[in-house]
Formats: sequence, structure tokens, C-alpha cells
Amino acid sequence: MTAKTLYLEDLTAGDVFVSGTHELDEAQIKTFAMQFDPQPFHLDHDAARGTMFAGLAASGWHTAAITMKLLVASVPIGNGIIGAGGEITWPKPARPGDILRVVSEVTEITPSRSKPDRGVVSLRSETRNQHDDALQIFKSKIFVMRRP
Amino acid sequence: MTAKTLYLEDLTAGDVFVSGTHELDEAQIKTFAMQFDPQPFHLDHDAARGTMFAGLAASGWHTAAITMKLLVASVPIGNGIIGAGGEITWPKPARPGDILRVVSEVTEITPSRSKPDRGVVSLRSETRNQHDDALQIFKSKIFVMRRP
Repeated sequence: MTAKTLYLEDLTAGDVFVSGTHELDEAQIKTFAMQFDPQPFHLDHDAARGTMFAGLAASGWHTAAITMKLLVASVPIGNGIIGAGGEITWPKPARPGDILRVVSEVTEITPSRSKPDRGVVSLRSETRNQHDDALQIFKSKIFVMRRP
Repeated sequence: MTAKTLYLEDLTAGDVFVSGTHELDEAQIKTFAMQFDPQPFHLDHDAARGTMFAGLAASGWHTAAITMKLLVASVPIGNGIIGAGGEITWPKPARPGDILRVVSEVTEITPSRSKPDRGVVSLRSETRNQHDDALQIFKSKIFVMRRP
């Protein structure tokens, strides 16, 4: 897809958007964790070893936040990306050194019945690392306006 | 609930955990948005006025991250809070000046069939502001170990 601004009438189920990349490092993982998810497996290599993660891992919410940054830059919806919510899963944690990118596909478009100027677009966004492992799958519903 | 460390056998459907509070301000909203969700309605009062948010609003991922911070301090699971994922909705955005707290309820406990040392606990966490508006509802599944 080109980077032109998109409105509801520009989108079709099956459209795919591929984001740029974000390189994750240990310092970012620890900084985010200290502020929002201060658990040993997100803060300290040694403490993380004996946990379910078996090594330092990024908070799932950090992966989600980076995913949003990559989405904002790769899915150029005219009114911005405004989500009502969605279903999020983290099949694998992000690790220091991972290079993240997000591949998003439009799965459904539902024009609003009550508000003719907008609709709801279902998006399936997969956050992958450089090995193509899926780290996060987010099936979201976003509000998209028709062209003004 | 007391703050003792909890394992799978300590939890019962219906258990409720109430977190402490987090006071959100404009600077926090903008700092998070600049890093992870740089859209006008999360960055600038004037630009936000004409959008679907009708005023400066926190990124939903910021609300999610603060929710995690409050959960970590209020749901004392022995092995930490490790989520497989869940369903997230944002009925209303968080605003500057909102005082957030999280009320979590255990809704289901499913011992693992293949791994007898653990189970999956379903948690419904509602993030509310000082007016008791629900800003985020997160229905999650977390991995909880039995007492070692």
C-alpha cells in the first residue's frame, strides 16, 4: 500500500500493511518494566533465568506499545488509529536484540448503521521478530471515517 | 485479600483484588504518546479538540501499561503475573487528572491437564477513574503455579 491517507472507502478486506522495524534492547526492556511492569523476569537477567521465561523478556505491554508505534507509522488512516479494543495474545515474549515489525491485514469492514460517516474495520496485526516468530497477535476493531 | 503470596490452590472464583491508585497527568500522557502512540489526540490539547476524542486523551496502551503496574502491586501471585493474552476494551479514554485504580475478579480457574504443577486463571480487571467510570476492561488468562 502507498502512504496516502486512507478512509473507509479506500479499504478492502485482504489489504496488508507492513510496518518498519524497531530494534529492542535490554535497556529499553528494563526502562519500560521499571515504570509499568516491575517483575523480576522483565528487570534482571539472573532473576529471569529461573522463571517461566527462562531469561530476560520484554513485558507484553511493551511489545504492545512498540506495536502501536509501528502501526501508527504504517497504517495511514485519515482520522488516526482509534481502537475500541480487541483480542491480544503473546505466543512468545520479545527478547533483547529482537527486531520487531508488524504485519497487519484488514479482515472485515462494517459500515456503521447509525452513523453513516464511519465504520468499524477489523485488523489482524501480527508482531514478528527477525526470525519471523509471531510474538504478539492483536485482532482489533478500529473506527474509520469516510472521506470528509 | 491480604498481601500474602498466592498460588493456584489459594485462589477461588469470585476473589476480588483492589489496587492502589495512579494519578494521571498531561505530562505523562504526552511522554508516553511521543514514544509509543504519536497521534495528535494524545499529544496536543488544541489538535485533540476536533477529533473523535474531543480533547486530550491517553493512549489506550498507556492505560493498559498503568493497569499492569497497578495489577503487579495488587495481585500477589507467587510466580508473578504472566499473561497468555486476553480481550481488552476501552469504553472511555483516560484524561489528564484521572485517578486510576484497578478492580480485578477471578472468574475461572482451570488446572492444566498436561502440567500438574500449574493452571490458568481467568481474571477480569476493570480500570476505573475517580468517578467510577470504566476506562478499560481486560479479561485475561494468566498462568499460575501451585505452591512449590
